[in-house]
Amino acid sequence: MKAVRLLEYNQLPRIMEIAEPKITGPHDVIVRIGGAGLCRTDLHIIEGQWAEKSGVTLPYTLGHENAGWVEAIGSAVSNVAVGDTVIVHPLVTCGLCRACRAGNDMHCSNSTFPGISVDGGMANFLKTSARSVVKLDNSLAPKDIAALADAGLTAYHAVKKASALLYPGTKVVVIGAGGLGHIGVQCLKALTPAEIIVVDKSPAALELTRQWGADYTVVADGNHVAKVKDITDGQGAEAVIDFVGERGAERDAVQMLRRAGSHYIIGYGGRLDVPTIDIISTEINFIGNLVGTYNDLVELMTLTAQGKVTLHTAVYPLDAALDAIHDLESGKLRGRGILVP
Amino acid sequence: MKAVRLLEYNQLPRIMEIAEPKITGPHDVIVRIGGAGLCRTDLHIIEGQWAEKSGVTLPYTLGHENAGWVEAIGSAVSNVAVGDTVIVHPLVTCGLCRACRAGNDMHCSNSTFPGISVDGGMANFLKTSARSVVKLDNSLAPKDIAALADAGLTAYHAVKKASALLYPGTKVVVIGAGGLGHIGVQCLKALTPAEIIVVDKSPAALELTRQWGADYTVVADGNHVAKVKDITDGQGAEAVIDFVGERGAERDAVQMLRRAGSHYIIGYGGRLDVPTIDIISTEINFIGNLVGTYNDLVELMTLTAQGKVTLHTAVYPLDAALDAIHDLESGKLRGRGILVP
Amino acid sequence: MKAVRLLEYNQLPRIMEIAEPKITGPHDVIVRIGGAGLCRTDLHIIEGQWAEKSGVTLPYTLGHENAGWVEAIGSAVSNVAVGDTVIVHPLVTCGLCRACRAGNDMHCSNSTFPGISVDGGMANFLKTSARSVVKLDNSLAPKDIAALADAGLTAYHAVKKASALLYPGTKVVVIGAGGLGHIGVQCLKALTPAEIIVVDKSPAALELTRQWGADYTVVADGNHVAKVKDITDGQGAEAVIDFVGERGAERDAVQMLRRAGSHYIIGYGGRLDVPTIDIISTEINFIGNLVGTYNDLVELMTLTAQGKVTLHTAVYPLDAALDAIHDLESGKLRGRGILVP
Amino acid sequence: MKAVRLLEYNQLPRIMEIAEPKITGPHDVIVRIGGAGLCRTDLHIIEGQWAEKSGVTLPYTLGHENAGWVEAIGSAVSNVAVGDTVIVHPLVTCGLCRACRAGNDMHCSNSTFPGISVDGGMANFLKTSARSVVKLDNSLAPKDIAALADAGLTAYHAVKKASALLYPGTKVVVIGAGGLGHIGVQCLKALTPAEIIVVDKSPAALELTRQWGADYTVVADGNHVAKVKDITDGQGAEAVIDFVGERGAERDAVQMLRRAGSHYIIGYGGRLDVPTIDIISTEINFIGNLVGTYNDLVELMTLTAQGKVTLHTAVYPLDAALDAIHDLESGKLRGRGILVP
Repeated sequence: MKAVRLLEYNQLPRIMEIAEPKITGPHDVIVRIGGAGLCRTDLHIIEGQWAEKSGVTLPYTLGHENAGWVEAIGSAVSNVAVGDTVIVHPLVTCGLCRACRAGNDMHCSNSTFPGISVDGGMANFLKTSARSVVKLDNSLAPKDIAALADAGLTAYHAVKKASALLYPGTKVVVIGAGGLGHIGVQCLKALTPAEIIVVDKSPAALELTRQWGADYTVVADGNHVAKVKDITDGQGAEAVIDFVGERGAERDAVQMLRRAGSHYIIGYGGRLDVPTIDIISTEINFIGNLVGTYNDLVELMTLTAQGKVTLHTAVYPLDAALDAIHDLESGKLRGRGILVP
Repeated sequence: MKAVRLLEYNQLPRIMEIAEPKITGPHDVIVRIGGAGLCRTDLHIIEGQWAEKSGVTLPYTLGHENAGWVEAIGSAVSNVAVGDTVIVHPLVTCGLCRACRAGNDMHCSNSTFPGISVDGGMANFLKTSARSVVKLDNSLAPKDIAALADAGLTAYHAVKKASALLYPGTKVVVIGAGGLGHIGVQCLKALTPAEIIVVDKSPAALELTRQWGADYTVVADGNHVAKVKDITDGQGAEAVIDFVGERGAERDAVQMLRRAGSHYIIGYGGRLDVPTIDIISTEINFIGNLVGTYNDLVELMTLTAQGKVTLHTAVYPLDAALDAIHDLESGKLRGRGILVP
Repeated sequence: MKAVRLLEYNQLPRIMEIAEPKITGPHDVIVRIGGAGLCRTDLHIIEGQWAEKSGVTLPYTLGHENAGWVEAIGSAVSNVAVGDTVIVHPLVTCGLCRACRAGNDMHCSNSTFPGISVDGGMANFLKTSARSVVKLDNSLAPKDIAALADAGLTAYHAVKKASALLYPGTKVVVIGAGGLGHIGVQCLKALTPAEIIVVDKSPAALELTRQWGADYTVVADGNHVAKVKDITDGQGAEAVIDFVGERGAERDAVQMLRRAGSHYIIGYGGRLDVPTIDIISTEINFIGNLVGTYNDLVELMTLTAQGKVTLHTAVYPLDAALDAIHDLESGKLRGRGILVP
Repeated sequence: MKAVRLLEYNQLPRIMEIAEPKITGPHDVIVRIGGAGLCRTDLHIIEGQWAEKSGVTLPYTLGHENAGWVEAIGSAVSNVAVGDTVIVHPLVTCGLCRACRAGNDMHCSNSTFPGISVDGGMANFLKTSARSVVKLDNSLAPKDIAALADAGLTAYHAVKKASALLYPGTKVVVIGAGGLGHIGVQCLKALTPAEIIVVDKSPAALELTRQWGADYTVVADGNHVAKVKDITDGQGAEAVIDFVGERGAERDAVQMLRRAGSHYIIGYGGRLDVPTIDIISTEINFIGNLVGTYNDLVELMTLTAQGKVTLHTAVYPLDAALDAIHDLESGKLRGRGILVP
């Protein structure tokens, strides 16, 4: 089959022929890929930022946002059948450790992460496990929802944590009006009564967020912290959800917090750097956010089925993967890039 | 009356005669001081670290950890009577703002902080309010419990927040075996089934924590992060409670966290400085901690009455306040310094 | 002034002249009534159902759902000024007990309940306290929102508790499409992504709930438990919010619960009667619900200001109070009855 | 092998030879029984109380509290090896449904319950699954801890839920000083700072609870509700944990609740019967409790290993199962009865 393979760090991946995956264990599931999302993390992987953390051995296949149809199943798989439409939770988890048993799949102590630590889904087929597939209505097109498997799931997970703080009358700042911000605003609207302030450099991107439910938009023009303070009566917001986490956003976020407020960190690249006296005198919090749980993914797919979350995508054939990467890097990609084999 | 007055930053305070406070409002309470705690924050105040945050006008009276007996009450005070033994919550709060109404006194939007922003309790008398006094059994000596009013309350508040994470089988690291650590370990023992690891530079201080309930002690000798990792099977601890927050403790604390763990910041002076990729890839949290609520103080006094929390104190006459300050600065003060008028 | 006075149980109240209330304490607030809601609880009071629980001494003035304008304030009142438009939290609370300090005003150990245990607001003026008044935008008409002070607040409080269980994909049953159900459905829509099933005897009332956001409506025709089971794939609902609590609703509610589900009891009159084996084998819960907190009332007023909660009312002059009572008893009253002096 | 088989309801089970269980699926685990607990639920099963709820087909083998050593494992089992000492979670769960994925094993939608709905552990061997076995230190004797698998787990689960309400200064009532009460009191002591009041008919049983940590004991002599009210300053307790649930305990429990208090129902047989007006006017709650989760069982085994929970047992050979049943029925059995093959 065809696959997008990373051969060396700091070089573009190559589209090559490799052997198809085979069922070897009782819980294996092989998915025929209908759509594989392209994500900024793929760029970070190519740059080698994840080399040490993932421990992956090159070459391998990229692609950690996958959806498609079940092609084959192991002997003990009971929750899906061949032909089912599925979205794939990004981790393959053991189901036996404390984290899995508490529902925190992303902290499984025996997991693999296809597309990050083992072969991923930018290919004709992906090998995952029964624990990772969410069965969908057959009317759904995998290419339309694949990007929810990781980007969407991460946004949903952070919003769900923040929602506990967001009662009527509160305000929440969303930093970044790109793919994750797009989904984050819609999830906030679905889950909370808070008023939403979106901050981004692009007036056009901000304009779009109005349709998704943003109550206020603020152009990140250097004066944006003061503007957020104005909108929040000089107090700051109860929650700031930072989908950028670099190039200054991670510093601005801290300045936008109300006393006892919480800063949800999703984007990365920069450093959180705050004097401890500022943390204790206002009792603020910084909350790390990884991808969501399997149940989070089911909930997000429910919101999608209910029409509360939609996604703008730009579809490329798998053979055009390098074009998609180029468009993402150069800022030309509108919406979320999806590779279709 | 006599009072310990700060006249200028970076100069020692002076013991002077000033006018006694008077009842002027219906909720005023005047407390005859039986004990006023001396705290590292007093040193930070003298150094001017709080000048901007507190907005205090010099000269003023220090002392934010107070206990004593009710001397006079305003017309609308119903919860205490003249002669009652009381401990004083450090803030004077409005009772009407959202924070007060939600029980979060320390985030009152109309508060004063005697000893920080207005005249405090290192004097014969302190003016506070009905909302700030906790009535105690008359058998209790104010000088024995005064230090619980702020140091103890802060430790209790942080431990109470952490306790939600600490089920049987978890481990918690306490950084700092001084006054707050002393109380923190006892509170952890009273509230949680977690195993407690205490880290400090002083082997003697660590030895004492064994009596209070520490399960493991680790000398902060440069190899202490590795030792904590060993004790936690290489995973780190579910919670790290940092009573130091400076001189490297704030960096060590991050290294001691387990995946999804939380770092409670109480001590201050240093900076929290962590790459955002480290925060998101392990989903760790940083939780700011200010002084506790009024209800927290009542709960802490209950633990004290039950014999579950005790305090080592070193008593100085009010006239010897400068000796006490000198002993604290030079590391000679054993236990918590208490000034008695 | 004029007031609606209850002279004896099981007799209609009488509209009489009585003395106006006077400011006597520093926190007193006198409100000129702009609207006083009439509620089924007023009928229960007249029937004597609350005689023992409230301990009220007859004669007294009815009216526990009040809004209006501040007429006079005590010496220590700082949160409102004469002329302000206010809605009145139903309880007068002490602000000093543990419940008040934890935000649970309705469990204040020193409270009075105007209209239930002391003189209420079916009159020209009501005496309450600074802690009980929520300042509103002057554009709001008290008669339009008075009924939110108790009926609305109770519905909001129960919905807020239930919302913790209601993630995307869950279903919630609302029993009763009257005044409380009306507000309950709107609050559910504002606070949760759950699908809403409304059950009532009246097809017309059910039809209205479609506009407020009901996803499913079920006529209570004897076959309604089975219909709710069908809608919930035979499993029952994660939460059942019972605004009726009598005449069989309290039994139906139990049958509509999913395993581990929760039954929120707001309406009253009947008995909860369930075999303990049924409670433990499915691990279901029964949650009592009283009026909400002051902060709940502020949140509800925020939803109202945002247009997310509206209320149908039928206005009567205060002099026509007995007509209003008659219309409520006979089922002729459409929407919520409001008396305007 | 030998097994204790129930052939007909309302007749004593018979000890018979049956075929040993075999590994048939990849996650099967066969446990050589070291101890099988006898429980009041076994008597209820024999009486037919569970016939309809469990849907079991007679004849079958009793025994739902099991510990022993791993005898054989399926091809996909990775968490235990042959020879390991294990305690067995009472349910065999799918690991794939929402409840399993949220950690709520006891609400698995595809579970079996050995000893209740399929063959249990009063035999030489038990067939269970990889998801149900907790690996223990080999120094532990299965017969000493078997009863923690269900009775202990249920007590721990209820205590853990109640612990969220139990801050310093609160009081909790435990009704029943038998096997579950024994464990419940120890778990309360380990997890909470609350003061514990134990109520039972037997002064001797109460005397024992003093050693486990009871602060107050009250003989159930008809005046016990009043005594509990006295101990709680006339207010009642924040939580009542009812291990009896029949013969009046379920009514007494309601009377012992403080405003906003919660009644945890574990014992069964009686009916919960309360006027809805009493539930709403005090805002009390009734919380059903089933057996705990797998993680709960791990936590309970940690407390056991730490010496915080111990268990009195009376050991019988498997052949003497009918003697054990007779002793339990007639009240002669001291501690928890354990059958050892």
